[in-house]
Amino acid sequence: MPAEPNQAEPRKRNIRLVIEYDGADYSGWQRQPEKRTVQGCIEEALTAVTGQTPALIASGRTDSGVHAEGQVANFRTAGAIPAWKFVGALNDHLAPDVAVLSAEDVPWSFHANRDAKTKLYRYSILTRSARPALERRFIHWVRASLDTAAMREAAAHFVGTHDFNSFRAEGSVEKNTVRTIDKVELDETADRITLHFLGDGFLYMMVRVITGTLLQVGLGKIAPADIPAIIEARNRTAAGPTAPPEGLCLVRVYY
Amino acid sequence: MPAEPNQAEPRKRNIRLVIEYDGADYSGWQRQPEKRTVQGCIEEALTAVTGQTPALIASGRTDSGVHAEGQVANFRTAGAIPAWKFVGALNDHLAPDVAVLSAEDVPWSFHANRDAKTKLYRYSILTRSARPALERRFIHWVRASLDTAAMREAAAHFVGTHDFNSFRAEGSVEKNTVRTIDKVELDETADRITLHFLGDGFLYMMVRVITGTLLQVGLGKIAPADIPAIIEARNRTAAGPTAPPEGLCLVRVYY
Repeated sequence: MPAEPNQAEPRKRNIRLVIEYDGADYSGWQRQPEKRTVQGCIEEALTAVTGQTPALIASGRTDSGVHAEGQVANFRTAGAIPAWKFVGALNDHLAPDVAVLSAEDVPWSFHANRDAKTKLYRYSILTRSARPALERRFIHWVRASLDTAAMREAAAHFVGTHDFNSFRAEGSVEKNTVRTIDKVELDETADRITLHFLGDGFLYMMVRVITGTLLQVGLGKIAPADIPAIIEARNRTAAGPTAPPEGLCLVRVYY
Repeated sequence: MPAEPNQAEPRKRNIRLVIEYDGADYSGWQRQPEKRTVQGCIEEALTAVTGQTPALIASGRTDSGVHAEGQVANFRTAGAIPAWKFVGALNDHLAPDVAVLSAEDVPWSFHANRDAKTKLYRYSILTRSARPALERRFIHWVRASLDTAAMREAAAHFVGTHDFNSFRAEGSVEKNTVRTIDKVELDETADRITLHFLGDGFLYMMVRVITGTLLQVGLGKIAPADIPAIIEARNRTAAGPTAPPEGLCLVRVYY
């Protein structure tokens, strides 16, 4: 693969964007007909700004309702607009719940999905008797208190390279279900619990199924020592329910 | 004043609520005809729950668009509903952007406004080139970077007992404009600046006019050394513009 554009298209460029979005009112990242998606909205803004219709390649999809602080995507374009100008120009064409944070020229070969090395996700949980008003779009409310010591013990079992077939949406078709999780961290302050997941990639719904399983551990319905057998089962029915999307945020993609 | 209800109404009680709200879609705290206000909505919920129409007394009003994590209010009611049950019952009747966090029986004499000793407000500022998507309802976006050392120096001049006539909305009628500010703190992490204001009371718009003045200091348009003269002027036109409501949150009221 050539690392630079060919001579016939001397101004063809590859632009990398970092994107923040409140996913509550989007049907996820991926463009779909008749649906409001993040990719669809940004591609429309790109068309308005560049007069072309460049395809946007993301680090990966996020599900309906899931947020991002640092989604990364790239697109190829002709034209001489300085990269930084895309920030303001695109944001002028985007709804308030999505914003381009940065835009920069990158080598022609850069591919936001293929080149992504690790991803950091955060799952936020609020444990109190009253539902949240201020954070209602960004946190999963659990009315009960949770056994965080048990959750930490359970979380440690996910670290490493495993077949995560038990922890993905039923019906998803990805053949290779082996992934490596580098870290699952649980932080606790007053009535909130924050989980951070760092890994080389995550299957469809995987972070949310792991979180749903950890919530069951926190509620005392699954023992931490049961986790290895749940992983070993390679069967979605062995794991806990899928945690809701509002607590999940793609924090950062590492290249 | 009697500290307890009289014998003819043995079950009359005084209930204290702590309330959280996202003020973006409210015309402030105070009930007004034809407008969506926090007080109005909670009083409607109280009517639905108690069958009575108790008046809700808050620690103080918040302006249109201003948020609260810990507004305090009280109401008198008859009936035997356990106080804690008001939390779920009221929240069932309230929109997602307002939530009652706690409810407890307090002595008959407790008055949320008259008894409030100090209040803590937070003003949140985001300084970066791109507008916020995730925090768009809760933070004031400033495209420029700010001189936080100068802002800290300026902030120190507000601490103490002063006539704050320069720092309230024009046309407000409160006669006593002397207030005591115990603390103005500025915290800084990456691209966000958080101001905390602790004081015995604040005039109408006072936190936002002080913040707007500190923003002018951060932009280099007002020198920190000019603040004493601006206070001394006792004239609204001497201070900076009113900072927008979205960055402001009533964190806590101390009794």
